[in-house]
Amino acid sequence: MRGVVMYAPGDVRVEERENPTIVEPTDAIIRLAASCICGSDLWPYRGAEPADHAPMGHEYVGTVTEIGSDVKNVAVGDFVVGSFVASDNTCEICEAGYQSRCVHNVMMGAIGTQSEYARIPLADGTLVATPGQPSADLIPSLLAASDVLGTGWFAAVAAEAGPGRTIAVVGDGAVGLLGILAAKQLGAERIIAMSRHADRQALARQFGATDIVEERGDAGVARIKELTGGLGAHGVIEAVGTQESMMQAIRATRPGGHVGYVGVSHDVTLDGQELFFSAVHLHGGPAPVRRFLPQLIQLIWDRTIDPGVVFDLTLPLEEAAEGYRAMDERGATKVLLTV
Amino acid sequence: MRGVVMYAPGDVRVEERENPTIVEPTDAIIRLAASCICGSDLWPYRGAEPADHAPMGHEYVGTVTEIGSDVKNVAVGDFVVGSFVASDNTCEICEAGYQSRCVHNVMMGAIGTQSEYARIPLADGTLVATPGQPSADLIPSLLAASDVLGTGWFAAVAAEAGPGRTIAVVGDGAVGLLGILAAKQLGAERIIAMSRHADRQALARQFGATDIVEERGDAGVARIKELTGGLGAHGVIEAVGTQESMMQAIRATRPGGHVGYVGVSHDVTLDGQELFFSAVHLHGGPAPVRRFLPQLIQLIWDRTIDPGVVFDLTLPLEEAAEGYRAMDERGATKVLLTV
Repeated sequence: MRGVVMYAPGDVRVEERENPTIVEPTDAIIRLAASCICGSDLWPYRGAEPADHAPMGHEYVGTVTEIGSDVKNVAVGDFVVGSFVASDNTCEICEAGYQSRCVHNVMMGAIGTQSEYARIPLADGTLVATPGQPSADLIPSLLAASDVLGTGWFAAVAAEAGPGRTIAVVGDGAVGLLGILAAKQLGAERIIAMSRHADRQALARQFGATDIVEERGDAGVARIKELTGGLGAHGVIEAVGTQESMMQAIRATRPGGHVGYVGVSHDVTLDGQELFFSAVHLHGGPAPVRRFLPQLIQLIWDRTIDPGVVFDLTLPLEEAAEGYRAMDERGATKVLLTV
Repeated sequence: MRGVVMYAPGDVRVEERENPTIVEPTDAIIRLAASCICGSDLWPYRGAEPADHAPMGHEYVGTVTEIGSDVKNVAVGDFVVGSFVASDNTCEICEAGYQSRCVHNVMMGAIGTQSEYARIPLADGTLVATPGQPSADLIPSLLAASDVLGTGWFAAVAAEAGPGRTIAVVGDGAVGLLGILAAKQLGAERIIAMSRHADRQALARQFGATDIVEERGDAGVARIKELTGGLGAHGVIEAVGTQESMMQAIRATRPGGHVGYVGVSHDVTLDGQELFFSAVHLHGGPAPVRRFLPQLIQLIWDRTIDPGVVFDLTLPLEEAAEGYRAMDERGATKVLLTV
C-alpha cells in the first residue's frame, strides 16, 4: 500500500509500505476513507521532535476490511471512526473517561494512518461504527472527530464551558477553532476567540465566537479582563502549547476558573507561586477523544455540527509533502488527504 | 494591647501595639480567645520571605467588641470565627466559592492576629458566629477552622475525596493531617498518609489514615502505585509547597485524577510536558476557607470532628518566640497562643 513516511525533519515522502495484517486477535484492519495532517505532525517536521523514517499520521476514518478473532463490536464492512490513541475502553482509567491514558494504550502515531490501510489495535475499545454508510460530504467531519474535534471538545469540557459562562480560546488552529464550536454546543454564553488572522476570525465567528481579541500575551490578557469586568474568563481553552500561550491562558482565567489545555507542551515551565495564587483549575493533556466519539458522531450524523470545514486544503495522499509544506507555511489550517 | 512582631527573620518579639479601632464602617473589632502560629509563618522566620517589623498572625477566634455602622451579620458579644483572608462574600468571585481571591480581599497577615485584639475588615462577609458561646475545650478546634482545617478541607475537596476514592496526602504538618480528617469526612475509602514521624503517623491514623508510606520522592510515588494497582491514587493532597512535594503529588496521581495543592509554593517550577502527559487535574492556592466555615463550625459544635488536637503545644501570647522556635525545630506541629 501507499503511505507517508517522514525521512527526516522537512523530508516527507509517500512510498510503498507493507500492507498491515492482524497481529493480535483484538486488531482490526481498516481501508481509510480519508486521512489528514495534524498540527502536531509539524513538531517533527520542524525538527522540534526527532523524525527518522517514521510512518506518519494518527487520524483516520474508514471501512473495516478484516477483524481479529476476539473482535465483537465492529464487523467487516462497518464504517468506523477511532481516536488517535487506541484503548481497551474497559480498564479503570478508560472507565473514568481517560482512554488516552488507557493502561494498554497504543499511540496510533506509531502505526501511521496517512496510508491506504491501517491496523487498529484494541478494535473493540477503539472503534465506533457510524449509524450507516456516510455520504461523502460527512467524511471530513467524521475525520475531524478522530482528533481535532475530540481534542477541542475535551478542552471545552476541561474549561467547563456551559450556560452563563464566558470562555476564551487561545490558538486559532483547527483545535482552537473546534474548541469554539464545542464551547458553543456546550452552551457557553460568550466565546472570545484570540486570533489575528481574518480567515480564521471568520471561521471562529461561524463556529460561535461572540468576540475577537487580536492582542497577544499580556496585552491579550488585559483585553480579556476588560471584556469580563476585570475578573477574567470563567474558562480558557489553550490550544497552542508554548510558554506564551500557556501563561496567556492562565492569566486570562479568573480565580477559581478553569484552564483546559490541549496544545502539546513544548519548552513550557510553570512558576509554582504564580500558579498557586492564580487559584485556577488546570486540566488537560492528550484528549480522551474516545469518551466523546459516540456523541460527536451523532451530532455530525444529524448535521448539527459541521467541523469538517476546518479542512481548507484537500490533496491526494500522493501529494502529502505539499500538504505538510502548506501547513508549515500557514497556507492551510488543516489538510485532508484523500486515499 | 500586646501583640507579636517579627523584627527580622528569627527575631520574634511580643510588645505593645496600638489597640485597633474601627476604620471602615464594615469593620468589626474582636477580642481574641486564642491565636496560633502557622506553618507559613516559618517562611519569613527562616528568611525565605522578607520580615521587617511585621505584625504576625492570621488565624483567630474571639468575641466581637465593637462593630462599624454598616455591619449587620454579627453583633457585639458574638463569638466568631473568620478566615485568614477577609472577603466581602458578595462579589462574583466569592459567590463562586473563591473568597480567598475576593475582589476586595484583605490578607489578615497584614493586620496580625497574634494579639489581644484585631480589626476584622469586611466583617459581614468574613465572620461566622458560632451557635452560642463555646465551651473552652472547643476553642482550639474553632481556631483550627480559621486556617489549617479550612485549608486541609479545601485540599481534600480539590483532590475530589469521596466514596470509593483512594486519597494520598503529601505532608504531615497540621494542614496535611487535617486534610486526612477532611478526606475521611468526605467519605474517602482509603487514605494514604506520607509521613516518617511516629507521632504524626499516630495522629494521621486517628484522623482516618488507612495506610502509611514512609518513602519520599520517586520511592514514595512507587509505593503509592504499588498500593493502587499500579495506577496511582484517585486524588492527592499536597500540603508542603516544595519542588519535591509537588512532583511527588503529581506523579502519585493517576491519569484523570486530582491534585489538590495548598502548600504555598516556594521555588517550584513545573515542567509543562510532564504535566501535560500526566493528565491530572491540578487545583489549589490560598484556600477559600470562608466557603467551608459554616459547615466546619457545625461539625466542631456537634463534636463530630476534633481538629484542635493538632495543637500539641500551648503557650501564653507572651511566649510566642518560644512557640516559633519549637515549630521551626519541629518540636511542635502547631502552637496555640492563649490570649
